[in-house]
Amino acid sequence: MTSLSTSEGVPEPDWALADALFVTLHASGFDGVGITRDSYGAGEQRAHDLLREQAERSGLQVSVDGALNLYITLPGRTPDTAVVMTGSHLDSVPRGGNYDGAAGVVAGLAVLSGWRKGGYQPQHDVTVMAVRAEESAWFPVSYVGSKAAFGLLPAQALHATRADTGQTLSEHLTKLGGDPLSLARQVAALRPARINCFVEVHIEQGPVLIEAGVPLGVVSGICGSLRYRRARALGYYAHSGATPRSHRRDAVVAVSQLVVTLQRLWQELEHEGHELTVTVGQFATDPVQADFSKVSGQVDFCIDLRSQQPLTLTLMDERLHRAIDEIASEHGVTFELGERTQSTPGVMSAQLIADLHTAAQNLGLQTRCMPSGAGHDAAVFAGQGIDTAMLFIRNANGSHNPDEAMSIEDFQAATRVLGRVLAQRAG
Amino acid sequence: MTSLSTSEGVPEPDWALADALFVTLHASGFDGVGITRDSYGAGEQRAHDLLREQAERSGLQVSVDGALNLYITLPGRTPDTAVVMTGSHLDSVPRGGNYDGAAGVVAGLAVLSGWRKGGYQPQHDVTVMAVRAEESAWFPVSYVGSKAAFGLLPAQALHATRADTGQTLSEHLTKLGGDPLSLARQVAALRPARINCFVEVHIEQGPVLIEAGVPLGVVSGICGSLRYRRARALGYYAHSGATPRSHRRDAVVAVSQLVVTLQRLWQELEHEGHELTVTVGQFATDPVQADFSKVSGQVDFCIDLRSQQPLTLTLMDERLHRAIDEIASEHGVTFELGERTQSTPGVMSAQLIADLHTAAQNLGLQTRCMPSGAGHDAAVFAGQGIDTAMLFIRNANGSHNPDEAMSIEDFQAATRVLGRVLAQRAG
Repeated sequence: MTSLSTSEGVPEPDWALADALFVTLHASGFDGVGITRDSYGAGEQRAHDLLREQAERSGLQVSVDGALNLYITLPGRTPDTAVVMTGSHLDSVPRGGNYDGAAGVVAGLAVLSGWRKGGYQPQHDVTVMAVRAEESAWFPVSYVGSKAAFGLLPAQALHATRADTGQTLSEHLTKLGGDPLSLARQVAALRPARINCFVEVHIEQGPVLIEAGVPLGVVSGICGSLRYRRARALGYYAHSGATPRSHRRDAVVAVSQLVVTLQRLWQELEHEGHELTVTVGQFATDPVQADFSKVSGQVDFCIDLRSQQPLTLTLMDERLHRAIDEIASEHGVTFELGERTQSTPGVMSAQLIADLHTAAQNLGLQTRCMPSGAGHDAAVFAGQGIDTAMLFIRNANGSHNPDEAMSIEDFQAATRVLGRVLAQRAG
Repeated sequence: MTSLSTSEGVPEPDWALADALFVTLHASGFDGVGITRDSYGAGEQRAHDLLREQAERSGLQVSVDGALNLYITLPGRTPDTAVVMTGSHLDSVPRGGNYDGAAGVVAGLAVLSGWRKGGYQPQHDVTVMAVRAEESAWFPVSYVGSKAAFGLLPAQALHATRADTGQTLSEHLTKLGGDPLSLARQVAALRPARINCFVEVHIEQGPVLIEAGVPLGVVSGICGSLRYRRARALGYYAHSGATPRSHRRDAVVAVSQLVVTLQRLWQELEHEGHELTVTVGQFATDPVQADFSKVSGQVDFCIDLRSQQPLTLTLMDERLHRAIDEIASEHGVTFELGERTQSTPGVMSAQLIADLHTAAQNLGLQTRCMPSGAGHDAAVFAGQGIDTAMLFIRNANGSHNPDEAMSIEDFQAATRVLGRVLAQRAG
């Protein structure tokens, strides 16, 4: 392995390219409120087109796979060696922000363009991957693009439907020129043995770095999740004035009691030393049947549990089920939790974690070690046994909203650290 | 006043007419799931047309007012005396049942048709009123038809909009041939001094009579209400995995806490001797912005408080506000309760209550005295100082749903009691 001092001689990233891309990405994705780059839709496609055009202008090699993931490569001096990879996703949630996902792709392209302009060619190939459909806000499937790249996407995911268009993943993919058949056959565009490492740069989606006054976070591990996306409580609609409390089977009261209980269980597990998050992000009475003058007969809701420890998720799930049994019998309602979906935590490479800290330190930048509560494509790479790491950029106001606010100084800090670690790995 | 024994000689109600009307009303209102007779829409209009045609075939006088309330009258032997009135509404909630409202109108028409067929003419006019737009599920206004009949409808109510059509009450009224200008001028079709009494028959909307095994309820008083129909909690959208509990401003957690607290406050007031109901019938995160992977930034909800005692409503409202202040500061959310609407409780005539009990007793029918938790047009008549009473018919499965279940025997029992009390009053 080359020493860090070697990589200190590599050219600066291409800041002009990064600035221009953030402007054009914003313009092409702005929906009037925030940024909408819909997975396998017009918004994501425009972003891919922009990145591809820029990469070609920068003299880099581009290719796509059957899932339309975009690969931008600076070829190394020694062909057919394991490729050093970076990248992130280009899609966004509806009315999201400009940086969630895109910042990591732009960082990688700025590094490669800077190297190419500076005439720097490493020993190994270095590839920036612009991953498709990371945000499961569109299709109810996690990590579509990165899973498909490894031939890991379950075939039934091709029939998953985007609620807003009513069309399947397969139909969306076909419309954009992709190859659903290769996904159904689980053809792998990426082979783990041929990948040296994967380093993903991403904005932080919580307030930890802002509050700590630290520009960069090195991720210790990516949380896994346990979810009930389509849970329902069934009570009985009844007249609000004519139905005594003892005769009610009130779905709003039952699910409210569940939400309050989940908060208490979360606190209890934290006191027992567990690290997790517990969220009910959707809670809705029926838009047609519910009325201000009716006891509610139905509530649709979801539960999202996340932790770095699979055991913690299992414990919380057990307590959740006990709570639901008690509430159901107390309030005379029935709970239908629906399908349980799970993702396994992503283990990060200890060596890359150390390298990221060191590279930052050499640049005079403070870092903080922190878990990633959010899931990322990096978890798919880690799951394949590939050396994987993530670098978080300080960001205000969270993500998945139009107010996310990353400073360009912090972006440049992260990109410099990325460039050094990629150069170190690429030799 | 004539004695009860006199009225025992009056003819039986017209059961064939009642049976036929329930069938045609069902057929004309069935929406595939339940009954939809939309206020000032096609559904309610079809019901009014059916009642009007039947009344004309029965040889009764019919007229409408500017609000399109329908009046069906059997003229008395002595003109220009105070009219004895009965009736109820013909509209329904969306996907409601066939009897809520309509049973009271059919009962009145069955009585008058039976009298006419049997050649019975009382001294005073007897009028069945088919009231418009009692269900505020359509326009966000209480008692549109009965208030308008007394010239009491606030002029701004004409601009109230039906959410499903986007059209105002004024526009709906015009389309059906009504006279919005007379409502704007608060022209009164009914004058309290010219009304002897108003007796409304209605199905019970709760389980009290079914559980007691008693066919008829005599209403002791009609609950008033205090409502926040469009309340909102504003938090902050944040990533579910990346936002620690301490940093969340979770609108779902805050409103859930409020719902659970309201249940506790309701119990406390009951223990202190108050009678009331407390209902949150709608609770909804934003259908676009909310997501299973986001802490929720907004919840829309409503609160419906009902009691026979205005003081109880005031007390509950005070405690509600204290709870909201505490929850807002604990969870970092803002509550916007929106407009507070109120209706005053309806006081029933002690004499009519006694007459209804006696008439039932003479027919060998059990009765129970009970409050009406639901609001009714009778409350508007009572508010005008008119002698008013209500008779509830036993009914299974509540109301405002397709499963309401009144037996024809119980309907006939109520109609017989109504006929006797009307005959007694009409002389």
